[in-house]
Amino acid sequence: MSKLRVAVIGRAGRMGSEACRAVEAADDMELVAALGRGDELRTLADSGAQVAVELTHPDSVMENVEFCITHGIHAVVGTTGWTDERLARVRGLLADAPGTGVLIAPNFGIGAVLTMRFAQQAARFFESVEIVELHHPNKVDAPSGTAVRTAQLVAEARREAGRGDQPDATITALEGARGADVDGIPVHAVRLRGLIAHQEVLFGDEGETLTIRHDSMNRASFMPGVLLGVRRVVDTPGLTFGLEHFMDLG
Amino acid sequence: MSKLRVAVIGRAGRMGSEACRAVEAADDMELVAALGRGDELRTLADSGAQVAVELTHPDSVMENVEFCITHGIHAVVGTTGWTDERLARVRGLLADAPGTGVLIAPNFGIGAVLTMRFAQQAARFFESVEIVELHHPNKVDAPSGTAVRTAQLVAEARREAGRGDQPDATITALEGARGADVDGIPVHAVRLRGLIAHQEVLFGDEGETLTIRHDSMNRASFMPGVLLGVRRVVDTPGLTFGLEHFMDLG
Amino acid sequence: MSKLRVAVIGRAGRMGSEACRAVEAADDMELVAALGRGDELRTLADSGAQVAVELTHPDSVMENVEFCITHGIHAVVGTTGWTDERLARVRGLLADAPGTGVLIAPNFGIGAVLTMRFAQQAARFFESVEIVELHHPNKVDAPSGTAVRTAQLVAEARREAGRGDQPDATITALEGARGADVDGIPVHAVRLRGLIAHQEVLFGDEGETLTIRHDSMNRASFMPGVLLGVRRVVDTPGLTFGLEHFMDLG
Amino acid sequence: MSKLRVAVIGRAGRMGSEACRAVEAADDMELVAALGRGDELRTLADSGAQVAVELTHPDSVMENVEFCITHGIHAVVGTTGWTDERLARVRGLLADAPGTGVLIAPNFGIGAVLTMRFAQQAARFFESVEIVELHHPNKVDAPSGTAVRTAQLVAEARREAGRGDQPDATITALEGARGADVDGIPVHAVRLRGLIAHQEVLFGDEGETLTIRHDSMNRASFMPGVLLGVRRVVDTPGLTFGLEHFMDLG
Repeated sequence: MSKLRVAVIGRAGRMGSEACRAVEAADDMELVAALGRGDELRTLADSGAQVAVELTHPDSVMENVEFCITHGIHAVVGTTGWTDERLARVRGLLADAPGTGVLIAPNFGIGAVLTMRFAQQAARFFESVEIVELHHPNKVDAPSGTAVRTAQLVAEARREAGRGDQPDATITALEGARGADVDGIPVHAVRLRGLIAHQEVLFGDEGETLTIRHDSMNRASFMPGVLLGVRRVVDTPGLTFGLEHFMDLG
Repeated sequence: MSKLRVAVIGRAGRMGSEACRAVEAADDMELVAALGRGDELRTLADSGAQVAVELTHPDSVMENVEFCITHGIHAVVGTTGWTDERLARVRGLLADAPGTGVLIAPNFGIGAVLTMRFAQQAARFFESVEIVELHHPNKVDAPSGTAVRTAQLVAEARREAGRGDQPDATITALEGARGADVDGIPVHAVRLRGLIAHQEVLFGDEGETLTIRHDSMNRASFMPGVLLGVRRVVDTPGLTFGLEHFMDLG
Repeated sequence: MSKLRVAVIGRAGRMGSEACRAVEAADDMELVAALGRGDELRTLADSGAQVAVELTHPDSVMENVEFCITHGIHAVVGTTGWTDERLARVRGLLADAPGTGVLIAPNFGIGAVLTMRFAQQAARFFESVEIVELHHPNKVDAPSGTAVRTAQLVAEARREAGRGDQPDATITALEGARGADVDGIPVHAVRLRGLIAHQEVLFGDEGETLTIRHDSMNRASFMPGVLLGVRRVVDTPGLTFGLEHFMDLG
Repeated sequence: MSKLRVAVIGRAGRMGSEACRAVEAADDMELVAALGRGDELRTLADSGAQVAVELTHPDSVMENVEFCITHGIHAVVGTTGWTDERLARVRGLLADAPGTGVLIAPNFGIGAVLTMRFAQQAARFFESVEIVELHHPNKVDAPSGTAVRTAQLVAEARREAGRGDQPDATITALEGARGADVDGIPVHAVRLRGLIAHQEVLFGDEGETLTIRHDSMNRASFMPGVLLGVRRVVDTPGLTFGLEHFMDLG
């Protein structure tokens, strides 16, 4: 079986350098180009790449994706900063390139994606739900973006199921004790030296609780998701937003 | 809106008495009959019950289910002891009662069902998986039936995804340290005074772990599942095996 | 060996009725009196009780303890509402009863006492510490009194060790995300149907974390502490405040 | 205040190189010598070191420690392989060097030492106790040495308190399900990609459980313990075995 020809755009970044290593280590892939700042996009076309992994910066991502689409190269994009307008532009370009696929994923962590998906599925079955996220103390925002996103998905699923407010008899509370309110879901952020990136979604009902916990130790944990994206994007024309669509989660 | 007319067969048992309470407490249901040992099944028909919750014993369940089907009463069955032969007989009876539905569920715990389902879905994405179940020390079997069933579902999902053996470099081990081997999945059973019924499914891959934990405190935790079964069975003709099919898990 | 003669004052209360059961079940004790509201204290003296377990109300506790001391009956007291003034009065009474012992314990949960003690001991070794307490949603205060007390003990131990502020780079936070500030220690309160009473103290430093978790399922969990108090108070003249002093924790 | 003059023996090893970094980063210490294989011990004396951190190999440790003692240099030793005979020899040498201190520590992880100590203290208060240790799948032994040592300390504390066997009603069990038996304490070893080194000690009694969990992410976590040893050994003449003796744990 011939190997999938893969290029990485953003080879010097933290994610990009991991991606180069991961592609090289994959049995079914070949790294045919690795572009850094200043490299010509033409290299990409010359390399015969079938898929490009784009891990650069919101300022450069549109140009790179446009080049891929117009040259019939599938793209797996981890760069952030996508607005509805930008997504519309990608869809427009893809309309003229019927066989080409683009995956844009805000999160390549398979554990993180599964956590969000399971939380969404469990949401309508439980009276109570709260989120505790735990990170190293150098993190500047609280709660984490992933926790906020998870809370929003859970809140939406509760609304769709017709669930009302959560039970909470609290009368006297110290300020902040009950966490941040994200769309009705309490979210608590712990900052502790020695931790990396962790999240717990706790569901509870009469006599039982269900906890989904994700522990992420390093950037290497994103690579299985990137490789999964590469393998699937070649058979998925058009725009796919979110790795979960490639995970056959039903 | 008129209430759903529900009967309970096995009213004196531990599950049956909880079910009577739960049906009475539900806004959309009315408890129209509660049968104990020695009560005539005819009472069931006379009560005008639309659904019967069957929580008795493997020796009596077939007769009860047969009565329900032949009288056009939907049934939600928690009694165990189902063989392929018995299930075939139920299917045969239902063939002559096209509008009637029967739900047979080995586990009404929504948390337990979700744990198994999520474990099954996550299985193919992780290199490693182990199960730790924790119970009170009066339990006579180890591991728990739920843990064994979960391990089997996970093993099956790994096989379907073409995953081979788990990584394990153990050379010297004390006997039993690495747990029981259930279809290739290590399962560990903790017995501790003060615990009730708990299970953790741990998944791990390069740089991340995902843990699904279910804590079950008492029998009341089965009732939301029983009520869900009652509400859905009336619109689901034929035999349904497993509560998960009524949970829209995709 | 003759059994210890024990009385319970407050037999009809939730704690008192558990205490009666626990004393009766103990091999080395005999329940010689169980007083409820309206019973004469004289009964206590007549019963020949060596130890009285006082589990009533702040309004009646002083009278009961005074009776015990003046009649040479050791007392194990779980009733709350102790001020410095009240404690001084007990000490004054005990000065005239040199052989008699009184244990006043705000918490008889051995697990809770150990959690506080271990947290206090660990505090000076870690750069970071936070507390997450988790309770049923009918609880009216947040955080729990135990969590606040634990935070205060930890903060005190940090100060004694000359530890400064905890590391926390948070710049943008949703209100409440970082929990309540109890003496410099972030405390988070989760309220979830299905939970009972739980607390986690999380310590972290470069490359490692230490977590102490206490799960309390019911009032029965206080009884080993009550019995320990009864056994030790007979050999400990004077006033002892806090069960930890009877636990030989060094 | 003048800085403590510290030398590291074994500068090229994994622990030794971390130790060099840690000493250099400490405000109150100065790294005056760092010896590798082949370097003369004389360098140590010439450097004016007050304390030597010995992190080499069982084959060379005795010679190094002897040199330190005879030259009045305090030693903090992490190298393993200590027998009663070897310890006796160190004690003999120290008898002739009354002001000199030697700390030999099998484990410099403060979290690990605290876990063992707390487990030992809690042991006599709970009817049940089990240990679950979790490591990466490249580990060759199961259970971990730390888990075995913890189990032995817990078993010893139970014996001293007159506690008998743990409650366990298991009649039918799959082989290995109940873990390894270490001195009567069940120990379970989980091996999972993505994990590093983790241990949970679970205690349980009527209505409550207490869990002590230690998560160790990397070798850096040993350095606070090494530095603590350096600071304390200068005021502690004679042989000290185990870092816990420098931790004022009562």
